Formats: sequence, structure tokens, C-alpha cells
Amino acid sequence: MVTQSRALATRDAILRGAAEVFGARGYGLASISDIATSAGLTKGALYFHFASKDELALAVIAEQHRRTMEASAAILAEGRPALESLVLLCRSLGRQLLEDPVVQAGIRLTTDVGTAEQAIVEPYEDWFRAIEELIRRAIDEGDVSERLDPGMFAHLLSPAFTGVQLVSATLTGRADLLQRIRELWIVLLPGIAADGRLDALRSLPDLVVGG
Amino acid sequence: MVTQSRALATRDAILRGAAEVFGARGYGLASISDIATSAGLTKGALYFHFASKDELALAVIAEQHRRTMEASAAILAEGRPALESLVLLCRSLGRQLLEDPVVQAGIRLTTDVGTAEQAIVEPYEDWFRAIEELIRRAIDEGDVSERLDPGMFAHLLSPAFTGVQLVSATLTGRADLLQRIRELWIVLLPGIAADGRLDALRSLPDLVVGG
Repeated sequence: MVTQSRALATRDAILRGAAEVFGARGYGLASISDIATSAGLTKGALYFHFASKDELALAVIAEQHRRTMEASAAILAEGRPALESLVLLCRSLGRQLLEDPVVQAGIRLTTDVGTAEQAIVEPYEDWFRAIEELIRRAIDEGDVSERLDPGMFAHLLSPAFTGVQLVSATLTGRADLLQRIRELWIVLLPGIAADGRLDALRSLPDLVVGG
Repeated sequence: MVTQSRALATRDAILRGAAEVFGARGYGLASISDIATSAGLTKGALYFHFASKDELALAVIAEQHRRTMEASAAILAEGRPALESLVLLCRSLGRQLLEDPVVQAGIRLTTDVGTAEQAIVEPYEDWFRAIEELIRRAIDEGDVSERLDPGMFAHLLSPAFTGVQLVSATLTGRADLLQRIRELWIVLLPGIAADGRLDALRSLPDLVVGG
């Protein structure tokens, strides 16, 4: 038991170190040596847990996706209207991008050249499915127009969010991230709101920056 | 003259080689050796023209941005309504991303970790300005609603396009790029069209895939 929990603690330290290095330098410029140093281990000790840089990147992406999905599940469990839930999911991911180095690194690796392909495809597909399902519910709940194609919207929102966070990271080091996510919703809402619902939905973007 | 034109031809070959390597591997994993090989030169000959990988990346971004702006200027010179011009600008950049390795590499470098910061900021700011100006004109022309904030829309459209092209490259190798740009406009138009103009504007997204 002691050995196992020590191995888990070491693995956790490696993931934190890998997140720090991948997050700052991207996949291509990150080195195993830097990650070992950042984790406070020798390269040999690190190789005992992870065989390659690729394996480390996959582990960071998997841990990021796990944390993001866990936060999402907590929001969905609150039983709010679907469109409100979707706005809160975007805020939640924005907050994690501001606060959690593992999430920063995982998302950066997902948009980076060089990371193994399969690891990148699955998170996008999870998001497409989740968004499409929420938009279907939001149409049933009368918040979103029946004219909106839920699949088309999902395949736009997820890439648009990806670009918004990437450009915010590039231009402002994410200082304007929550405001840009808020503006994403301000621009999108008039086009997707059901007839007569826009006024009632106008307060939703405030959820992105608010409480 | 002969010497100068040979130097320009060599520089051109280096840019093409650099575009190929940066486009395929990203900034971090690209090496000067690979670029020299791809350009059919020795490393020494390459260093005669470019002092570092960073300088090569900046040159590729500058050449991509020049080509993109040249294509944009040609569209703007046609004197179409501003919103139609903006839709055509997006198509033009989409086409260049499908057909021109220098544009593929330049855009990839712009979203890559590790490239010099200044080179990345300027193209975004050029786009923000161009989009904001076109939306102002489109409002004056009665196509876009006065309720839309042109600056806010510019700061959304450019990142959203960035994400759409990046996710298309990641998930389909850009096979669905023009369709995704088309859907970007299908989703955005109902929210930005001036009252009573949406029906007339519905054919605009077809410009992305059409002729």
C-alpha cells in the first residue's frame, strides 16, 4: 500500500511537471530532461513511469479531459435549463484554463502539432456530442430556435471556443479570456434564440464572468 | 543582376522548404537540417540567408501574411457590398489554406507555441481592423444590424475562424474546411443580419463553397 501510494504520488508529480513544461513550451520544444527536472526526478526515475514524451503528452491530455469532464458533470447535475448549462460549461472550461496548469497544458497539446492523433480526436468528439445533446434539449425547452441544426452548431461552437482561448492565450496570456467567452455568447445568442426568447436569454453571457 | 536573382531564387527555395517542414511538423519539431534538405541546400548555404529557425519562421509568417493580404486586396478592389466581401475573404483564406503550403505553414506557425511573439500579434491586429471596418460598412449598407458591435464581432470572427481551420486540419486534414467555413456563416448570419435582410443574405454562405 505504501509503495503503491508513493508510486501514485510520483506519477502525480510527473504529470504536474509535464503540464508545466508542455504548457510553457508546447509539445515540440518540451524535453524529457526538462520534465524530469520540473518534477524533481532523475530521467531514469521518470522513464520508470513513462516510456516517451508522447506517452507523457497523452497522460496530460487524458488527465485534463478527465478534469474538464468532471467539472462538466457537476454542472449538468445541477439540473439547469440546457442552454444555461452550456454557457456555464464554457465558463467552467475558461476558469480551468485560467487556474489549472494541467488543463492549460492539455488544451495546448490538443491544438499542438506532433501530439498523437487519436488522443486529440476523442476529446473533440466528446464535446461535439455533449453540445449537440444540450442544444437539442434547449430546443425542446423553447430557448433555442428549431431552425438551428444542433450538429452544425456543435461543430462550430467547439472549434470557435478553441480559437477564442488560443488567440486569448497568444495575445493577452489569457487576461481577456472570460470576457472573450462572454462576447462569443453575446454574438451567438441573437442567431440561435427561439422567437421571443432573446430578451430573457440576454443575461446568460453574464454567467461567464459572474459569480 | 544575375547574382541577385540567384540569391532571390535561393531565398524562395528556402521559404518553400521551410514552409513544407514547418507545415508538417510545427515549429518545435522542425529542424534547420530538415529545412536545408527540403530546400536542396547545405546547412551552411541556408545559414547564409537565415541566421536561425526563428528567423525562418518569421519569414514564412511574413510571406504568408503578404499573400493573404494580397488576395484580400484583390477581393476588396471588386467593390462588392462589405458583408459579401467579408464572406469572400474567409473563402479566399480557406482556399489558400487548401492550396498554398506557405499559407498552411504561416497560419500553423501563428497558432504554434514557440514562434516569436511580435510576428503573431500583427497579423491578428490586421484582421481585427479589416473585419471591424467591413462590419461598419455593412451596417451603413443596411446588411448588418446596428445592434452589432463591430469591434466585438471582429474579435470573435478572427479567433473563431482560427479555431475552425485548426480543428478542421486536426480532425480531417482540412477535407471539410470550406464546409465548416460555410457553416460558420450559416450560424452567424441570423444573429448579425439587419431586420428584414436575413432572407436576402442567406445565399452568402454559398459563396464559400461556390465558384
